[in-house]
Amino acid sequence: MGWGDLGVFGEPSKETPNLDQMAAEGMLFLDFYTASPLCSPSRAALLTGRLPVRNGFYTTNGHARNAYTPQDIVGGIPDSELLLPELLKKAGYTNKIIGKWHLGHRPQFHPLRHGFDEWFGSPNCHFGPYDSRERPNIPVYYEDFKINLKTGEANLTQLYLQEALDFISKQQASQQPFFLYWAIDATHAPVYASKQFLGTSQRGLYGDAVREIDDSIGKILKHLQQLGISENTFVFFTSDNGAALISAPKQGGSNGPFLCGKQTTFEGGMREPAIAWWPGHIPAGGVSHQLGSVMDLFSTSLSLAGVQPPSDRQIDGIDLLPVMLQGRLIDRPIFYYRGNELMAVRAGLYKAHYWTWSNSWEEHSKGIDFCPGQSVAGVTTHTQEEHTYLPLLFHLGRDPGEKYPLSFASEEYQRAVEHISGLVQQHKASLVPGQPQLNVCDQAVMNWSPPGCEKLGKCLKAPESDPKKCSWPH
Amino acid sequence: MGWGDLGVFGEPSKETPNLDQMAAEGMLFLDFYTASPLCSPSRAALLTGRLPVRNGFYTTNGHARNAYTPQDIVGGIPDSELLLPELLKKAGYTNKIIGKWHLGHRPQFHPLRHGFDEWFGSPNCHFGPYDSRERPNIPVYYEDFKINLKTGEANLTQLYLQEALDFISKQQASQQPFFLYWAIDATHAPVYASKQFLGTSQRGLYGDAVREIDDSIGKILKHLQQLGISENTFVFFTSDNGAALISAPKQGGSNGPFLCGKQTTFEGGMREPAIAWWPGHIPAGGVSHQLGSVMDLFSTSLSLAGVQPPSDRQIDGIDLLPVMLQGRLIDRPIFYYRGNELMAVRAGLYKAHYWTWSNSWEEHSKGIDFCPGQSVAGVTTHTQEEHTYLPLLFHLGRDPGEKYPLSFASEEYQRAVEHISGLVQQHKASLVPGQPQLNVCDQAVMNWSPPGCEKLGKCLKAPESDPKKCSWPH
Repeated sequence: MGWGDLGVFGEPSKETPNLDQMAAEGMLFLDFYTASPLCSPSRAALLTGRLPVRNGFYTTNGHARNAYTPQDIVGGIPDSELLLPELLKKAGYTNKIIGKWHLGHRPQFHPLRHGFDEWFGSPNCHFGPYDSRERPNIPVYYEDFKINLKTGEANLTQLYLQEALDFISKQQASQQPFFLYWAIDATHAPVYASKQFLGTSQRGLYGDAVREIDDSIGKILKHLQQLGISENTFVFFTSDNGAALISAPKQGGSNGPFLCGKQTTFEGGMREPAIAWWPGHIPAGGVSHQLGSVMDLFSTSLSLAGVQPPSDRQIDGIDLLPVMLQGRLIDRPIFYYRGNELMAVRAGLYKAHYWTWSNSWEEHSKGIDFCPGQSVAGVTTHTQEEHTYLPLLFHLGRDPGEKYPLSFASEEYQRAVEHISGLVQQHKASLVPGQPQLNVCDQAVMNWSPPGCEKLGKCLKAPESDPKKCSWPH
Repeated sequence: MGWGDLGVFGEPSKETPNLDQMAAEGMLFLDFYTASPLCSPSRAALLTGRLPVRNGFYTTNGHARNAYTPQDIVGGIPDSELLLPELLKKAGYTNKIIGKWHLGHRPQFHPLRHGFDEWFGSPNCHFGPYDSRERPNIPVYYEDFKINLKTGEANLTQLYLQEALDFISKQQASQQPFFLYWAIDATHAPVYASKQFLGTSQRGLYGDAVREIDDSIGKILKHLQQLGISENTFVFFTSDNGAALISAPKQGGSNGPFLCGKQTTFEGGMREPAIAWWPGHIPAGGVSHQLGSVMDLFSTSLSLAGVQPPSDRQIDGIDLLPVMLQGRLIDRPIFYYRGNELMAVRAGLYKAHYWTWSNSWEEHSKGIDFCPGQSVAGVTTHTQEEHTYLPLLFHLGRDPGEKYPLSFASEEYQRAVEHISGLVQQHKASLVPGQPQLNVCDQAVMNWSPPGCEKLGKCLKAPESDPKKCSWPH
């Protein structure tokens, strides 16, 4: 989902009344970022509070490549990483993930091995084919769940919603504190929505999915209120990357006025919708310019639970409570990575690009376009362009669309780049990259025989192991 | 000012708290249009309720050219046109224009000759040089008013604000109904703001100007409330064309997710921010998908005043009261003209382009770019492309950015184009174009000796009359 998909962020059909209301009752973050323009590393960063380059969710198979966890990935979240639910356990929290995991699907990587008490959802993304015998994806017990690729009908979000409401009720009844990671995979392509939402949006099927998410979030917030625990429950809404414009117009969302989309380190790829909600604590109708990150949800949640963050490793997240409760602004940069390459850095309103790349000419010629209808000379480049010694600098206040690099000769440029270069040096000097987890792929590790297959008589035989370098074209 | 310049429409700095509040207390129009992507014809349409091609505010000097009223224009609003203030007079209204007129600056065209009782402002736009002796623009008494082009400081909007507040107070005191046309010329380039707003925006000088407008509107609404007449005063906020992206990034605004800007018939050129406010009548927090037009302000205002619209001519505006008071949706098309060429038509969520053009290669090569950073093959064309027999069709719900023309072969295309073609035929069959007013230019008609110049000893001698075809490159 993209920044521009919410009414409150200017989506022209304005079809997200519940999210808009959530913002009116809570705090809207205008400058909130993911840690990667792609799902797996973004989610790994959220749960570890650390950049993918630290927690291992990157590849070194090519320069500046986005990598994730497809069906044949060998790696996953390392045991050495401390995940948010593991730490919250210390404070007595019950932790549940509902939805997409995407931090590795081999047994040692599963959520229940990394701090979650309950798991309802899929190890990977939902994309099909679900009954493939050549490239099995999600477990067989998901055969009950169908996406009608012709009509786009599927009730997965409703299943996830009901599971969330039930979990919240159960926790409230038992008076147990809880952490719910509601990681639905709508609006990912192939886009789907439940029957009651199909055809209800001006925006087509993608809009139907957005409306269903919006409706679900409204129901979750209302449920918290009805149970009388809304003033005791912190809720945060955000997305794991910018809208995938490559799926537009039928299945792609909106990044508002920003440049490009998912897979890129332009604003459209990494600036996210973000709303914090905690009635009675976060003042209603607040709007914050704090530079925020999904990694801050790690630190903020620990702070809320009264748990100390780990001191034996670098944590990139910051505690946003002073921002939300006292309206403070905390000075901190945003790092935009693609693989293990630091592509860009934002400090204040300035963003410096050290590398630019949309995608290769080869991929582009196949019709893969991360910036449809947009083209900024020297910026949305189809070759990887290095700007290390003379970064491209944008002022995101005057130019949120990254269209007008500042003049290299200007004082403003020199002042800002000097400042950002200092931050980069500091960052790089102390960086200890994790072991890259997304280098090796092997067909043998796919879900040939997921738990439950015996009962259904549907276990498949895995092929011989044949590990190879994964191919990451972007 | 552009659609995307308001926080409520997703401007990423969200710096328009008063306009956002106005929307929260009133009705936000998401699909509201001007009648021309340029100032003069747009304002003529607003005040006559008629398309420029009917009221004469167009040129036939070239095909599909935008024209306005520069200093040397010979034409202006014809006496045969009935303007809103002329009609409101019948109902006892006192009419005042504050700000930019732009419907012709020769004496016979002045506002006081066309229904306004009072006028405070300039006949043309504010752009300089103000003291030019070769090309005089606004009257000499404006020598008191300075724009510091280096700092961008000017207090014009404050002068206009004070004049508005005073007029409202006076009318309230005398219990006289009034029509105030608050036609400020900020944010037009050269952009300016008062000292108290300079440097206060994240968006630079343009943002400072937006903040000053926002603040002024907040003060006007508050004034109405303090005088106890807010429930008896209908207020509408909109703009005369899309943000001029050609002035970006230093002096140009935002059209949000829409394509291109001022001068074009893409959404960025003609979709406008629009808010209706009438506490106690228009329900708070309403959002409307009604296709609206600045020309509707003519019809709606007459309806509010209980005055019949003229029956001897075609009126293009519709009465929006049923939309605002009863939440109705009225089926009507939007016509996008450039000069006297019907470039595009919107009906429902479909928009058909019969002609596409951004600007000529020749102008483009001079650095004049109406679509910076945007380029959609076959759409943002630099030659005038005719699509009369096979219009380019967009679905603005799924594709508000006009990036993905529908397949000519699709049933959806055929159904929508058939419907729109019918509307076009009907429209063209009954169209009686007015005499084009914007064809002839003559240096002799410039403001060489405006009223008051004698006193200041600053009257200039007009050159010999030498009427020529005006040059309209866009």
